[in-house]
Amino acid sequence: MTQITDMLDLLQQHKISDLRNILTTMEPADIAILVEEIPEEYVPLVFRILPKELAADCFVEMDPDVQESLIHAFSDKELREVLDELFLDDTVDIIEEMPANVVRRILKNTDPQTRQIINEVLKYPKDSAGSIMTIEYVDLRKNMTVEQAFKRIRAYAIDKETIYTCYVTDDARHLIGIVTARTLLLSDPNALIGDIMETNIIYVDTMEDKENVAKIFDKYDFLALPVVDREGRLVGIITVDDAMDVMQEENEEDFAKMAAMSPIEDSYFKTTVLHHAKNRILWLLVLMVSATLTGLIITNYQTAFAAYPLLIAFLPMLMDTGGNCGSQASTMIIRGMAIDDIGLGDFLKAWFKEIRIALIVGAALAAVNTARVMIMYQDLPLALATSLAMFCTVCIAKSLGVIMPMLAKRLKLDPAIMASPLITTIVDCCSVIIYFTVATKILNI
Amino acid sequence: MTQITDMLDLLQQHKISDLRNILTTMEPADIAILVEEIPEEYVPLVFRILPKELAADCFVEMDPDVQESLIHAFSDKELREVLDELFLDDTVDIIEEMPANVVRRILKNTDPQTRQIINEVLKYPKDSAGSIMTIEYVDLRKNMTVEQAFKRIRAYAIDKETIYTCYVTDDARHLIGIVTARTLLLSDPNALIGDIMETNIIYVDTMEDKENVAKIFDKYDFLALPVVDREGRLVGIITVDDAMDVMQEENEEDFAKMAAMSPIEDSYFKTTVLHHAKNRILWLLVLMVSATLTGLIITNYQTAFAAYPLLIAFLPMLMDTGGNCGSQASTMIIRGMAIDDIGLGDFLKAWFKEIRIALIVGAALAAVNTARVMIMYQDLPLALATSLAMFCTVCIAKSLGVIMPMLAKRLKLDPAIMASPLITTIVDCCSVIIYFTVATKILNI
Repeated sequence: MTQITDMLDLLQQHKISDLRNILTTMEPADIAILVEEIPEEYVPLVFRILPKELAADCFVEMDPDVQESLIHAFSDKELREVLDELFLDDTVDIIEEMPANVVRRILKNTDPQTRQIINEVLKYPKDSAGSIMTIEYVDLRKNMTVEQAFKRIRAYAIDKETIYTCYVTDDARHLIGIVTARTLLLSDPNALIGDIMETNIIYVDTMEDKENVAKIFDKYDFLALPVVDREGRLVGIITVDDAMDVMQEENEEDFAKMAAMSPIEDSYFKTTVLHHAKNRILWLLVLMVSATLTGLIITNYQTAFAAYPLLIAFLPMLMDTGGNCGSQASTMIIRGMAIDDIGLGDFLKAWFKEIRIALIVGAALAAVNTARVMIMYQDLPLALATSLAMFCTVCIAKSLGVIMPMLAKRLKLDPAIMASPLITTIVDCCSVIIYFTVATKILNI
Repeated sequence: MTQITDMLDLLQQHKISDLRNILTTMEPADIAILVEEIPEEYVPLVFRILPKELAADCFVEMDPDVQESLIHAFSDKELREVLDELFLDDTVDIIEEMPANVVRRILKNTDPQTRQIINEVLKYPKDSAGSIMTIEYVDLRKNMTVEQAFKRIRAYAIDKETIYTCYVTDDARHLIGIVTARTLLLSDPNALIGDIMETNIIYVDTMEDKENVAKIFDKYDFLALPVVDREGRLVGIITVDDAMDVMQEENEEDFAKMAAMSPIEDSYFKTTVLHHAKNRILWLLVLMVSATLTGLIITNYQTAFAAYPLLIAFLPMLMDTGGNCGSQASTMIIRGMAIDDIGLGDFLKAWFKEIRIALIVGAALAAVNTARVMIMYQDLPLALATSLAMFCTVCIAKSLGVIMPMLAKRLKLDPAIMASPLITTIVDCCSVIIYFTVATKILNI
């Protein structure tokens, strides 16, 4: 916070070179955070103080609304300078967030060749590998020597997002090998790229789901992954930082879905109240209306709880515990599937596991419940009825926690929607039926 | 799956060199998966077929129980060969998973110097930066030339986990700068490291929480991060692949906690039924006993629902909706805090936001409920009573969804425990009280 006040002081006193000295020592991500905090009128000024490359790096880190207002403040020449410094995947990211008039201005200020590539990348579906790749990589030929490769890297590295993995292509741009900078450094300068390159390459298709791309990075610890088109021609690469972003995004989406919400695309505070409400209301309505069914079932047993009003006191406990057991199981299964720890083929294995867990957990909860009821009401039939209902509810809840997410996956739906809220609603229904059936039998109502 | 059958066929027909040819083209992570699927007696054989370096890479990727049985099968010489190939952070990871007798054998077979470093690293707390760092990095001096630096990298790179960021230290091992391989490649061979190194370095202390380390990687897109001791001396580095693992681990922990479970440390199927049950039962018991309170409150209103039995039919709907609204809000707040999007200082801002969302959502749900009750029962007072209770429940649930996680954070507890299950239990209590109070007033019971 003091940093912002310091910065404002320097701005107001026009100590531009002092400010510049401070800013150039900072990381782009930190400058972007500062810039978002200062009054809007100062933003273009601060931006113009920065050295060109740093300015571009900061620009990438800023929120879309700050980027937009900056673009409006830029002259065409300034805009061109910033765009020249950006990596292509970042330009595409920015374009995707901007309104049409800004997009037109951006495209107008990029050279025709870049514009064509941007338009290509924009065509890839939102969740595809193609949409997150960059086309700035170092490509080599197999008849080059290591020395020639270094020469090429030195000549082109400035514009490339990574130089630590180089890609070997043939005349038709087919990907035939990769060489890491480490291998190059450790090889004889006269060695041929074709002899030292790695030919067993893991790559993805442009249409591959970006979630799978993140999984590949997680599994193999890569720094970059090549992207090829249907003919096996290299079209781009994905770097580990973008894979990390995808991974975090997918996790946040799962968190939202598992709490019965549509995922938000922006930060919490940047998303409007109306948008938040819209993201939440659909599932609430569906679940509210579904819960009506449980209510209807209860009304069927009016005579039972008219005769024995205490029965109603156990409803919240049964329903909550059922919901909790179900959401424990479904969370385990949903996450297990998300990280490829559990597959559809493991259905019976997982179910058997949850049933055994349910037997232990159900017995323990039933025992504690029996003790509690005996202490509070000294009513053995009531204790038995509620404990038996509890035990059955736990078993059903854990089973549904396995069945529902795996069924969703089987139907090519996102398993994450089969989480706590939906499971709870279904378990409620079951537990009420079991409870009243058991209770009316045992208590002879 | 065919791969496993192929592999078994080759093994049974003793076609060792064919098998070797196939395996050497594969990624270590994939070989490890294969090895875990084949019968145990073949594992040491397959392992011995692999070239030394690949064997070590596979070993790192295997599950701890496979590693343990392999270590038992190894001669001391074999064990030493594998350990020699491992990076130090991987050795430490393996040691942390092994029983004491295996640890002793591992330590016995490492050279004294490595053993000392391993013991140092093992002393760092489980969640600290020190526990996940590696000590294999390239260090340079500022009076070296770029050419000398390359010579040093070439001489030492084989043993180093990354050579893409080099660390410049002074005589007392203080970290004074970093140089990337990219900078080295783009600099004049005679340039001095001191002139081209970056001196504004982001680093962490050995005791820093590894969750913060992962956040730093996410924010700055680093490939490696230096770790220093209290005196600012460089002691190790953390690489991006380890940061990704930490990030995924922390997410899985949050998923588990938010579903009222203790996180499991192993995979779903590797964790025993008893262990799963133990991880789940505590919260279930706490929540079950807490739900008793809601039951007690309900019994207080026996006369009300004896006079108007239909009232009970609305309990599941109210309780479920309250729980869902609360868990939506708490998930947003918990995740917002986890990714540093929401801070404790934003409390009033977040609450105000949730209240406005609650007004919209509550009004919509109340309207739908009114319509439904009028259609089903043509009972306006009942419709008003339930809708008003619904509206109030939504507002309280959304408020608690903000208050509880932020209170937990304020008390230095993990906000993730204030998720759906706990919020639901608290909201249940509140909604029952509101419901019966409103209903008895409006319906004149």
